[in-house]
Amino acid sequence: MYRTHTCGELRITHAGQTVTLSGWVQRSRKMGGMTFIDIRDRYGVAQLVFNNETNTELCDQANKLGREFVIQVTGTVAERSNKNSNIPTGEVELLVENLQILNEAKTPPFTIEDNTDGGDDIRMKYRYLDLRRNNVRSNLILRHQITFETRRYLDQLGFIEVETPILIGSTPEGARDFVVPSRMNAGEFYALPQSPQLFKQLLMVSGFDRYFQIAKCFRDEDLRADRQPEFTQIDCEMSFIEQEDVLNTFEGMIKHLFKFIKNIDFNGLFPRMTWQDAMKYYGSDKPDIRFDMRFVELKKAVSNHNFVVFDSVPYVGGICATGCASYTRKQIDELTDFVKRPQIGAKGLVYIRCEADGTFKSSIDKYYTNEDLKQIAGMFDAQAGDLILILAGNKVKTQKALCELRLEMGARLGLRNKDVYAPLWVIDFPLFEWDEETQRYYATHHPFTSPNLDDLPLLDTDPGQVRATAYDMVINGVELGGGSIRIHDSALQNRMFELLGFTPEKAQAQFGFLMNAFQYGAPPHGGLAFGLDRLVSLFAGLDSIRDCIAFPKNNSGRDVMIDAPSKIDQSQLDELNLTIDIKEK
Amino acid sequence: MYRTHTCGELRITHAGQTVTLSGWVQRSRKMGGMTFIDIRDRYGVAQLVFNNETNTELCDQANKLGREFVIQVTGTVAERSNKNSNIPTGEVELLVENLQILNEAKTPPFTIEDNTDGGDDIRMKYRYLDLRRNNVRSNLILRHQITFETRRYLDQLGFIEVETPILIGSTPEGARDFVVPSRMNAGEFYALPQSPQLFKQLLMVSGFDRYFQIAKCFRDEDLRADRQPEFTQIDCEMSFIEQEDVLNTFEGMIKHLFKFIKNIDFNGLFPRMTWQDAMKYYGSDKPDIRFDMRFVELKKAVSNHNFVVFDSVPYVGGICATGCASYTRKQIDELTDFVKRPQIGAKGLVYIRCEADGTFKSSIDKYYTNEDLKQIAGMFDAQAGDLILILAGNKVKTQKALCELRLEMGARLGLRNKDVYAPLWVIDFPLFEWDEETQRYYATHHPFTSPNLDDLPLLDTDPGQVRATAYDMVINGVELGGGSIRIHDSALQNRMFELLGFTPEKAQAQFGFLMNAFQYGAPPHGGLAFGLDRLVSLFAGLDSIRDCIAFPKNNSGRDVMIDAPSKIDQSQLDELNLTIDIKEK
Repeated sequence: MYRTHTCGELRITHAGQTVTLSGWVQRSRKMGGMTFIDIRDRYGVAQLVFNNETNTELCDQANKLGREFVIQVTGTVAERSNKNSNIPTGEVELLVENLQILNEAKTPPFTIEDNTDGGDDIRMKYRYLDLRRNNVRSNLILRHQITFETRRYLDQLGFIEVETPILIGSTPEGARDFVVPSRMNAGEFYALPQSPQLFKQLLMVSGFDRYFQIAKCFRDEDLRADRQPEFTQIDCEMSFIEQEDVLNTFEGMIKHLFKFIKNIDFNGLFPRMTWQDAMKYYGSDKPDIRFDMRFVELKKAVSNHNFVVFDSVPYVGGICATGCASYTRKQIDELTDFVKRPQIGAKGLVYIRCEADGTFKSSIDKYYTNEDLKQIAGMFDAQAGDLILILAGNKVKTQKALCELRLEMGARLGLRNKDVYAPLWVIDFPLFEWDEETQRYYATHHPFTSPNLDDLPLLDTDPGQVRATAYDMVINGVELGGGSIRIHDSALQNRMFELLGFTPEKAQAQFGFLMNAFQYGAPPHGGLAFGLDRLVSLFAGLDSIRDCIAFPKNNSGRDVMIDAPSKIDQSQLDELNLTIDIKEK
Repeated sequence: MYRTHTCGELRITHAGQTVTLSGWVQRSRKMGGMTFIDIRDRYGVAQLVFNNETNTELCDQANKLGREFVIQVTGTVAERSNKNSNIPTGEVELLVENLQILNEAKTPPFTIEDNTDGGDDIRMKYRYLDLRRNNVRSNLILRHQITFETRRYLDQLGFIEVETPILIGSTPEGARDFVVPSRMNAGEFYALPQSPQLFKQLLMVSGFDRYFQIAKCFRDEDLRADRQPEFTQIDCEMSFIEQEDVLNTFEGMIKHLFKFIKNIDFNGLFPRMTWQDAMKYYGSDKPDIRFDMRFVELKKAVSNHNFVVFDSVPYVGGICATGCASYTRKQIDELTDFVKRPQIGAKGLVYIRCEADGTFKSSIDKYYTNEDLKQIAGMFDAQAGDLILILAGNKVKTQKALCELRLEMGARLGLRNKDVYAPLWVIDFPLFEWDEETQRYYATHHPFTSPNLDDLPLLDTDPGQVRATAYDMVINGVELGGGSIRIHDSALQNRMFELLGFTPEKAQAQFGFLMNAFQYGAPPHGGLAFGLDRLVSLFAGLDSIRDCIAFPKNNSGRDVMIDAPSKIDQSQLDELNLTIDIKEK
């Protein structure tokens, strides 16, 4: 037997007992004739004591232990004279009588501490050592808890977890698939699923009624900061339901998780906001509503004052930063530089300071009287001491820039506290997006999303105005998940394909098996999917999803620990009937 | 709102209530002026009544409904005059006042009934319709329950579920990998994992202490009847444990599942059998111990009677089939044909009938006196009325053939009841298997399996005799899972690689990252993995794992429903720097 207790388990009530512990050497120190060693496992840390006077040989052995050695010790639990109230085992220590080295350890390339000296690259290469750090491991324990509670919640509501296949067929629409050459079917390929979308809809056709799956999904995209080639979704679908049922069910799930993980209760329903309002007031389909600072549209109010910048653009909008009238010239210049960065792309920044004496100081004083400015300030309900920040230009771009500026001001004002959670449903997404380049509509969500039935007449006259029965859950400006009610009527589905520019042949080739399935009696259905990685990151207060994934890949899609991907043997290529032919770029 | 109740929910207590149901038309029949329709959903079936006299128009509508139409009905629940005690809703029916067709359905290509008229191929092509059948869907509901309860059990014991990556590196050892070309790393490939083995061992190095994962695994093998290219394992690993801890923990898990799913209690510990005994008494490392019928070795007893068949072979063994002395010549010929089939390959079958009068009738009367036969029968504890069946030849092949004969006799005697469960741990597997062809040892389990420490001296003198600390759980002759204690000592690991014929370079190339990890302090650890598909099949009483997989592949690795794998676009191949070059076979 390697241990009678874990390293996190000993308390004052164990005093006098003989126990055996196993774990890793965290650190050691010598004081007088004593050697103290902290032994660590997943459950905690215990202090070991070796007395040079009473057992010189054992103490010598202990003095030779290096960091991260794996040891087993037996001894008597004793009350500490010097108690440590920072750790649960801090009232006791173990007077060691027997020490065995289970495994030696080379000196790790970085310290195994919460605040390590290891950089990102070295920690990824030695991820198995990085995972020894409490704060990294705790993210993965949290991930386990979240998936377990998600399953418990959904199981209680009669949802069935069904595994859908990983080796499926490639669909050229959408993001790029990872493909898998088939040896038994020469020249043919499987694809890895970007989501179980089609299968979950088939399961509804099969009458499964309530399905979920915590499913691995794959996307061969050029990786941005917060993307991984493989990621995990909480994928759900329900039959004989309407949007309201889906929102209630999964709002309940998120509330359950907040209660269980964080002991946070939310009063009443999560707020809902139409996509239109989200864009109008926050310039984003995933607004961070931990703070208000809504956009005010100023185009009408500021036009015809001979200020050509405002007169020449279609959109002028601003936000009011409470208490920021005291911002210095330098601070405002910083904000100007911020919005002029290429990623944001504004041309400039107009400000109005609401001074304590009721006057206004602005970068556009030349064109607007104090009375004009007062009127503008009134539109923001601005108070003395507030600072109004205004951007102008093309509507979409300017709203996006103003969104960034709002988030920046929120951060500066401490309004984006990670311990505050502001959930929101964004609803009524547009069904289609027009793409200027290809001069066609694309499905905002996917081609199976049902239009809002009230908007059906607009399909013929003004498709761009048709609202989808689609919804996203947003918390603190992060899109955690989204979904839609699906089209179950094949006539409507065909109409959709037509509007999306699919010929019947192309639609058949790509979605044929789903369309065929629908002919045998599809129930009304809908669902959604949550990004598990983002959900865990949110609960853990992390800035990147990478930190809640056990073995993540880097921005080139590489696992630097195991050095994958890698070359394969010629014999493997031969069996797959493949030749590598690297093109010069 | 599509429904107030599900189709399986209505009881006599609902009589008089107005309810709305949605579901599929299961069947309809006209009787006098009434039309009766059974409406089905996942939860059950309800009877709808349409009265031609009171509402002709509605009844006409109902008469036009086809099988599998999706409908919504509202009406009043009424007590049936003719109750059906076979279904939970059989005491009531719904007097329909309103009927709406939610979706029409083409006539399905086979009947959606427990006993369908559809063959295997058509049911796989229309798997989404096959899944509508109660008995198919119930397998998947069972699968959900088993995975959920597995997670609950392991969570309570402090196991953490960790997702390990699906896109990993290829390892040439073992079965063939599926590979995934990397677009971002030209000419390089990911591989799909055959198991999370290396990652779970790394997690032990990381101090996770107790890990599990219900994990998709992949193997590109030529498919046999009960193999799928993707399959699911309950994968587990523990630190600071010995074999006994692993057996107890997972015996507990299996008992928990039997209790929860089947309400079956097992008294005491599961029996354990060494691999040596399993081979000696059952000719199999996964004996079906629902019935005894152990092998008796007869070589000594039958030698030197001038019967050249027995004298010339190294092995003679038999089984005793209780009460089968009455078998006719024809029945014994059948058994002889059975063992002579090429898959089994015995040369012939010797029988001894233990007659009611105490005499013996045998196919080898010529060589053995009645007293000789009596002595042989005594070795089996055979009683009057029993039949002894004897095979002779090469030891390994004959034991295998005798195993098949034993299973056949067990089946004929009704001793292999699917509702009886006989679990067994097979332990002490040999560490190595000698391969005549390549003249080298292979790891029976895998190269990280620890030898039994008592057998360490044999590593140098007689490696073939070294027992592994490896174990399999077998139920009813099916290997459900297995595992081992791993080597955590790098000197012993290097010795193993040497015995397995790995040069240090090759070992480093293939397992380097694990060996490197072990240098930083690996704890003693071990674990096991269960085949989820087999586990569900066992609980469901299925003959094939295919029936407990939602969307299985056929023997060519094809998903005939979605028609995958399939050809991909040239542009996809170009991006992946691949050319297809199909060799003539």
